[in-house]
Amino acid sequence: MALNQYTPEEPISSIATALAPAALGIVRVSGKGCIELVSKVFSRPKALLEAPGNTIVYGWMVDPSTSSGTTAIDEVMCAVYRAPKSYTGEDMVEIFCHGGPAVVTAIQKLMLRSGFRQANRGEYTFRAYINGKTDLTKAEAVREIIDSHTDDSRSHAAGRLAGALYEEIDSIKKLIVDTLAAIEVEIEYPEDEETIADTFDKGDLEKAEQRLAGLVASWRGEKLYQDGARVVLAGRTNAGKSSLFNAILKEERAIVSDIEGTTRDWLESWAGINGIPVRLFDTAGLRETQDVIEAKGVEISRSLVHDADLVLYLIDSTEGMNDEDKEFIESCKVPLIVVWTKEDLPSLRAEETPVSLSGLTRQSHTCKISAKSGTGMPELFNQIEALLTQGLDTERQQAGLGSARQKDAVAEALERVRHALEAAADDYSLDAVVQDLEDALDSLGEVTGIVTPDDVLGSIFANFCVGK
Amino acid sequence: MALNQYTPEEPISSIATALAPAALGIVRVSGKGCIELVSKVFSRPKALLEAPGNTIVYGWMVDPSTSSGTTAIDEVMCAVYRAPKSYTGEDMVEIFCHGGPAVVTAIQKLMLRSGFRQANRGEYTFRAYINGKTDLTKAEAVREIIDSHTDDSRSHAAGRLAGALYEEIDSIKKLIVDTLAAIEVEIEYPEDEETIADTFDKGDLEKAEQRLAGLVASWRGEKLYQDGARVVLAGRTNAGKSSLFNAILKEERAIVSDIEGTTRDWLESWAGINGIPVRLFDTAGLRETQDVIEAKGVEISRSLVHDADLVLYLIDSTEGMNDEDKEFIESCKVPLIVVWTKEDLPSLRAEETPVSLSGLTRQSHTCKISAKSGTGMPELFNQIEALLTQGLDTERQQAGLGSARQKDAVAEALERVRHALEAAADDYSLDAVVQDLEDALDSLGEVTGIVTPDDVLGSIFANFCVGK
Repeated sequence: MALNQYTPEEPISSIATALAPAALGIVRVSGKGCIELVSKVFSRPKALLEAPGNTIVYGWMVDPSTSSGTTAIDEVMCAVYRAPKSYTGEDMVEIFCHGGPAVVTAIQKLMLRSGFRQANRGEYTFRAYINGKTDLTKAEAVREIIDSHTDDSRSHAAGRLAGALYEEIDSIKKLIVDTLAAIEVEIEYPEDEETIADTFDKGDLEKAEQRLAGLVASWRGEKLYQDGARVVLAGRTNAGKSSLFNAILKEERAIVSDIEGTTRDWLESWAGINGIPVRLFDTAGLRETQDVIEAKGVEISRSLVHDADLVLYLIDSTEGMNDEDKEFIESCKVPLIVVWTKEDLPSLRAEETPVSLSGLTRQSHTCKISAKSGTGMPELFNQIEALLTQGLDTERQQAGLGSARQKDAVAEALERVRHALEAAADDYSLDAVVQDLEDALDSLGEVTGIVTPDDVLGSIFANFCVGK
Repeated sequence: MALNQYTPEEPISSIATALAPAALGIVRVSGKGCIELVSKVFSRPKALLEAPGNTIVYGWMVDPSTSSGTTAIDEVMCAVYRAPKSYTGEDMVEIFCHGGPAVVTAIQKLMLRSGFRQANRGEYTFRAYINGKTDLTKAEAVREIIDSHTDDSRSHAAGRLAGALYEEIDSIKKLIVDTLAAIEVEIEYPEDEETIADTFDKGDLEKAEQRLAGLVASWRGEKLYQDGARVVLAGRTNAGKSSLFNAILKEERAIVSDIEGTTRDWLESWAGINGIPVRLFDTAGLRETQDVIEAKGVEISRSLVHDADLVLYLIDSTEGMNDEDKEFIESCKVPLIVVWTKEDLPSLRAEETPVSLSGLTRQSHTCKISAKSGTGMPELFNQIEALLTQGLDTERQQAGLGSARQKDAVAEALERVRHALEAAADDYSLDAVVQDLEDALDSLGEVTGIVTPDDVLGSIFANFCVGK
């Protein structure tokens, strides 16, 4: 979507709601002449053409191209928006139809036959951006909001959509611009006797440095709430992996449904544990099968554990720990919680196998639960949260960063500001400081989209849903 | 949802779009004071309160109950409808928000905290019905449209939503009412000498009978397009079942996605074959496994075949038919097409096992295909269509019936009209004829909802989506 090849007002159309049976669905169009184009396949063309912006017109979508008498596709409401008062800043129509996949698809196909081009991912938001309706931090927040797995994730993104990050960046840029202005006065009217260190007040730059560092630090936490953490259940056969998996999903299943493409080899699902989106993997059942499948299963388990952010290693309290357990716990390279399960049952072999981790050289977190009675579950969730948020600023500021792209640009700006401060301290030339600060402003401009190369734009909007 | 216990204007709210990541989502509210209730959690309450009907107001949904500063939930557009000009006939607001499941859910939860009750399935359409905005044939067509698996299914339902069935029923009722009027004149002013057979013109009643019979006959075809047919792929290991399954889905996958709850025991998916929704079952892989699982697999295959509307029995052309194949084909109780697969490969054993069905006592349909090259696929689809629509009126009238409920009521009316015609022919009393015709009118009233017991209403709307 390079800007120099892009035709901004070309009429585009796409389905904007999920394709599954539901009460309502939306087909969305934008671009020059889009109201006229829709009116040609609408039962009340005059009403649509004369509709003021931000109003709704009732009617039927009709297909004039069919030879049979059945031309009615669906009874709809059309929301009419007139430029520049719309999401994209162009004329727009949103067709609210019945939510059956066949209807929504039939209307979108009708649009494509009526002069519209299928919209690319994020193309509506891209147009909003090039028409000055949004900056890039807000545009990226839109994608984030849509992809949120928990209410906490959504709330962070909503802060960015409301402009919290934009304002923070803007305010940091102001500190740098003020410093630059002061330096440029000095360059124009130099007072020879002084050293560079005295030519300008470093207070503003130090404030900028501090706030940029805070933003960079926010990214690890924001990333956790956006992308979630991979948590894998491991343990011997009958350690209680499936019971725990189901118990967590029962109480904490994340707002989205199961992951697309879930295969037969393991189970996975999103859960929201203390507000953190967790992609939970259950390798249960793999050990019970035979031969080739067994070997494959063990391999998959190993690779799941390898890629995990956290492993819950389950041990049946009534059985106790054996050498296999010890070996796994000691050799595991990722953070791990030893979970003693079936706490509701009497510990049959308690004398022989004390329920403890003595004998392990590796320091481990432990927790005792009963998936059946729910005992210990809140403590397990608190431990999971503690391990996943270890080292994060728990009092997260609202103006956290929303994407790796933003983080790279802010980190670059931070480095330039630090370099400028060092240059000033080392009595380098003022020109070097000026160059650093101008580079820092460019990097911050990339965050909000004021200075943004085309290829960056393309990759930002490629991550969007179609229809947004 | 019994009418006598129902509070029509109670404010209700529900999510109206599918809960999966998408550009847009909708939360829909209806009832007395609903605009005021929404305005209390909206960033621009005055704009919302003063909005005329059928207009759209921009703003943010905000949660006043949170203690922290973050009260913004999402940036939205609110469509305002004022009674009686709305879907339900009551005041309504449709909140168009971002399509992330977490956002849509957060807004719905905000509504439930703001004085709204969660709407029941079909409750919006139920209110539209009790407020005279729709009749039952149109209300049921809404559910049909949402559940449509193919474009043809949608098109049939759209005809009913547009009123085709309502008009046909109305016109049949008029024929009966006219006849009744003529008879009642005769009862008031009898001319003694004539027989009952001469007292009224039976032409109208005969027309009514014919058209009612046509409607009843339409149901089998409409049901096929609504519910679809179960088609099972069977055959020996490596007969090419999976290849054919995938080839059909690649070209003809129905508009909806895979069936919820698909298990590990067999594969199934919707496909649209020549416009007919087909639920396709592949039992592939079951035969390859061992022992207990094998036994279970065979049992499942048998039960899938038993419940099928059509079986495609695949035979590898390069292998030819063996006794196992013959036994299956001869013993199969449901319609069956023998599909010779791998037609692109040379028939290695053609001399020993001629590619034919001689030797079979059962008359079977046959087809030769190559899933790989696509050879024979259109012919296979035509055979599937022919077998599934056998005995159906292929020139289906637009005013077909849309539900089993409608079919039962129309069949009852048809029976009463036939009884009246017999009574007239047999010279029974005019009173008996009048009673029959009045019963017929009652039955037809049930179809459109003019005379409908409460329990019928409840079961109609219980089949809807929430939010409709």
